Amino acid sequence: MRTFEIKPVNETVKKKAKSYIDNLTKPIGSLGKLEQLAIDLAAVTGELQPKLQKPAILVFAADHGVTKQAVSAFPQEVTIQMVQNMANGGAAINAFARNIGASFHLVDVGVATEEEISGVMNRKVMLGTNDFSVEKAMTTQQAEQAILVGYEETMRVIEAGADTVIFGEVGIGNTTASSALFGAISNLPIAHIAGYGTGISDLQLLHKIEVIEQALELHQPSATDAMDLLEKIGGLEIAAMAGGMIAAAERHVPVLLDGLISTVAGCLADFLAPGVRQYLFASHRSVEPGHIYALHYLDLEPIIELEFRLGEGTGAAVAYPLFSAASAMMTDMATFSDAGVSGKN
Amino acid sequence: MRTFEIKPVNETVKKKAKSYIDNLTKPIGSLGKLEQLAIDLAAVTGELQPKLQKPAILVFAADHGVTKQAVSAFPQEVTIQMVQNMANGGAAINAFARNIGASFHLVDVGVATEEEISGVMNRKVMLGTNDFSVEKAMTTQQAEQAILVGYEETMRVIEAGADTVIFGEVGIGNTTASSALFGAISNLPIAHIAGYGTGISDLQLLHKIEVIEQALELHQPSATDAMDLLEKIGGLEIAAMAGGMIAAAERHVPVLLDGLISTVAGCLADFLAPGVRQYLFASHRSVEPGHIYALHYLDLEPIIELEFRLGEGTGAAVAYPLFSAASAMMTDMATFSDAGVSGKN
Repeated sequence: MRTFEIKPVNETVKKKAKSYIDNLTKPIGSLGKLEQLAIDLAAVTGELQPKLQKPAILVFAADHGVTKQAVSAFPQEVTIQMVQNMANGGAAINAFARNIGASFHLVDVGVATEEEISGVMNRKVMLGTNDFSVEKAMTTQQAEQAILVGYEETMRVIEAGADTVIFGEVGIGNTTASSALFGAISNLPIAHIAGYGTGISDLQLLHKIEVIEQALELHQPSATDAMDLLEKIGGLEIAAMAGGMIAAAERHVPVLLDGLISTVAGCLADFLAPGVRQYLFASHRSVEPGHIYALHYLDLEPIIELEFRLGEGTGAAVAYPLFSAASAMMTDMATFSDAGVSGKN
Repeated sequence: MRTFEIKPVNETVKKKAKSYIDNLTKPIGSLGKLEQLAIDLAAVTGELQPKLQKPAILVFAADHGVTKQAVSAFPQEVTIQMVQNMANGGAAINAFARNIGASFHLVDVGVATEEEISGVMNRKVMLGTNDFSVEKAMTTQQAEQAILVGYEETMRVIEAGADTVIFGEVGIGNTTASSALFGAISNLPIAHIAGYGTGISDLQLLHKIEVIEQALELHQPSATDAMDLLEKIGGLEIAAMAGGMIAAAERHVPVLLDGLISTVAGCLADFLAPGVRQYLFASHRSVEPGHIYALHYLDLEPIIELEFRLGEGTGAAVAYPLFSAASAMMTDMATFSDAGVSGKN
């Protein structure tokens, strides 16, 4: 695996942003959480007035062998069907991408079909992972390749002008894989992490927890070695998201995390390239119980809570306008001296 | 005062919206709060797939005589200065209006100056209210006139194509007036309602509470008679916002409430024209303590909490994309049968 070097965020610009905000024509602190967001965006981009206007959404699709263990409410073929739906523009993420004027990029990094799907970038590493409840999900080479797919595709999108990146995923079984990953990373009880995913029953959830616990028992994955985690658990789309986050961090482009899966990918990205976490922003808090713990692991707080549990990057896409509003506050507002407005009594 | 007739929202479309959402290509319920929002927007507009694309922001500006009692952190002339800043496009609400592609309309309903301010619609009713801590804020005729200004200006904007309306305000002293209004409406202790407004000190807050308590003692305003409340307390911009909400409700156009001031205007609108509240949507929860009580008075729950306390309509403008996302979900997503996606196992 090549090594990546992530630079620290710009502390000088961060300090300047703080005092600049206090001179804007509004009572000090009156834009609450948006002010901290603007400060963090300035630090990440290195610009006092970051102009966020070109969001990009990259969705990575892949299958999970562990679906053989009946851990999901939907059969594995729904991955292909949802990828087709997304390529046709009919999924929730398409609607939300259009709503925020984001460019949309759909990458097949391991859907379990030989078929070409039109409108989808084919960067398939393998036909879905192996069933991690009984064997390793993939080889080291496959994990590396999936990370690089994410890295390269994201770099391409950034080079085309994207100034904010949202990573989404589609892959039946991927809340099982991410719960297993975060179980290994955090050492929290799986019952505190795993959730209903796309909508399993209570009984199925107990089974899902058991499958994960046994898999962790079998593989004994490292808590901080991303390659070991990906090799043993997967998935391909999670590896690709992690690679994409590294590319964004290298280029000082802010990343908006979505739910559990992308947040776990954020943890892996930070293991692979320490410092990536500084470039990650929480958007919403999802219903999956592990999500808030994963955000806290990265020292992040969600901005909104809409009770989403859909994935695809939907929560981040819906929250994105808060980030562009923070940017607009910095680029578009007058200062007290510009406007000739009196200060406090 | 003319009477207004508000029709109930469309319950048939509301029911249809519920079952339509369950057929969209996503797990049932997985878009959480956005689904309820979409259902409510369908009920209000009477359309199963309401296409929200033309938000309008109307800001009403006026002064408050009660600023003589030193209840605000800023001197009264800041109203004029902020109106000028807003007319020049430099205020926070301008930045956020551009961020969501909203049309912006600034109406002077009672700023304390004879001067014409360029870029501002002059619909001045009087040069600011009288000091309500010692006398009535305005006459019945003036209150009626202010309500009609809001009604007419909003109707004009709706006739020009606006499909969602946000009401903002600017007026030094207006958290004092709205806290007094909501104190009379709710009979809650003023100490539970009044807050720091634009940023007064603890000592100034105690003084502000005392001024309000004495004014309510003096006037004994009705808890449900909007004309009595406006006449005794004001303000002109609050009356105009109430009038605007009535126009929107008459035309089945959803209204996004902002903070305490617009929410109190929502209470008054519902007194003037019972049923208006069905057309009102909460956006954010502001820092002003009375805001959440005022929302609950209208049976509303805020969707986001960003710790804003700026006014101008800023919280609603920043939250607006959640509403357009709910609309996009209804208009842009494929159903399971459209897309040929399999259902649950």
